[in-house]
Amino acid sequence: METWQAIDSLRVVRSFAARPLEADHLRRILHAGRRTGSSKNRQDWAFIVVRDRAHLAELSKVGPYAGHLAGAAAAVALVGSKRRDRWDLGRAAQDMVLAAWELGIGSVPATVYELELASRLLGLPDDQECPYLLSFGYPADLEVLARPNRPGGRKRLEEVVHDERWGERWAELGR
Amino acid sequence: METWQAIDSLRVVRSFAARPLEADHLRRILHAGRRTGSSKNRQDWAFIVVRDRAHLAELSKVGPYAGHLAGAAAAVALVGSKRRDRWDLGRAAQDMVLAAWELGIGSVPATVYELELASRLLGLPDDQECPYLLSFGYPADLEVLARPNRPGGRKRLEEVVHDERWGERWAELGR
Repeated sequence: METWQAIDSLRVVRSFAARPLEADHLRRILHAGRRTGSSKNRQDWAFIVVRDRAHLAELSKVGPYAGHLAGAAAAVALVGSKRRDRWDLGRAAQDMVLAAWELGIGSVPATVYELELASRLLGLPDDQECPYLLSFGYPADLEVLARPNRPGGRKRLEEVVHDERWGERWAELGR
Repeated sequence: METWQAIDSLRVVRSFAARPLEADHLRRILHAGRRTGSSKNRQDWAFIVVRDRAHLAELSKVGPYAGHLAGAAAAVALVGSKRRDRWDLGRAAQDMVLAAWELGIGSVPATVYELELASRLLGLPDDQECPYLLSFGYPADLEVLARPNRPGGRKRLEEVVHDERWGERWAELGR
């Protein structure tokens, strides 16, 4: 899949088939996170793979919108040092979800609201935290992989792009 | 370019050819940011395109490692609400740099240390801030686009992946 196609067609998948991820597919996703660039190349991250069904169910309680974890084929907990900007984790997550999408694997992020619960479930050291997890799996509904983008699902380009300074209309929009 | 190839081969480019970005290429990069998923689909971001040479030079003073902005064909300032987690901005940035890479365009992020200076140069409202900018341009040295990954440039998979809980070795590493 071409890179632009993956970026443009990627959508959230919350409902997954029961079968586990193929080992090569999981490894590819983890390598995508590992390969990501980071501030000063610090690579201040750990990726905890969770596949145990009971463990996934426990982790689905870390936030109000994390229920999808219970049905994931695998989750990847994104872990970094406490009080660090989460920009780098966001970059690694995007690489992982795009690499997955190219393989026909859907994903959805979960924001962790209960950081202490997540730390306990994942056995984290005191200086680490898990602000996000990603659910992965082959979609329950394979049609989602080819579904066209929903109109209005994103703001229009002219709403988010400014030219040189805030509030200045980008000159090339009409071209 | 296949998605995995873009993720795996992406490298930082700090030195750019003088020619401006083609309009279609710049638009593609901005659409990649716009298309990115965000927490609750908030899309709490603005992308300010900077191409004016004097403006780029001013922005290159926002941090100790931001000098590359002065030589960029274009920069994109990533703007979001103050006190917001930067995870979403990181995801949008990764989509932009991958979309650019597929088009033969290099990039490098700049961390903003002088947030007030950046706000003034970009004319931001009080509730917005710009923690990062991205420099884009066709590489001065085109050979960089096909250069193999530097050995040791990233931690090994077994250093960053854990199985179920922190410190547990991932079982499939050897397979």
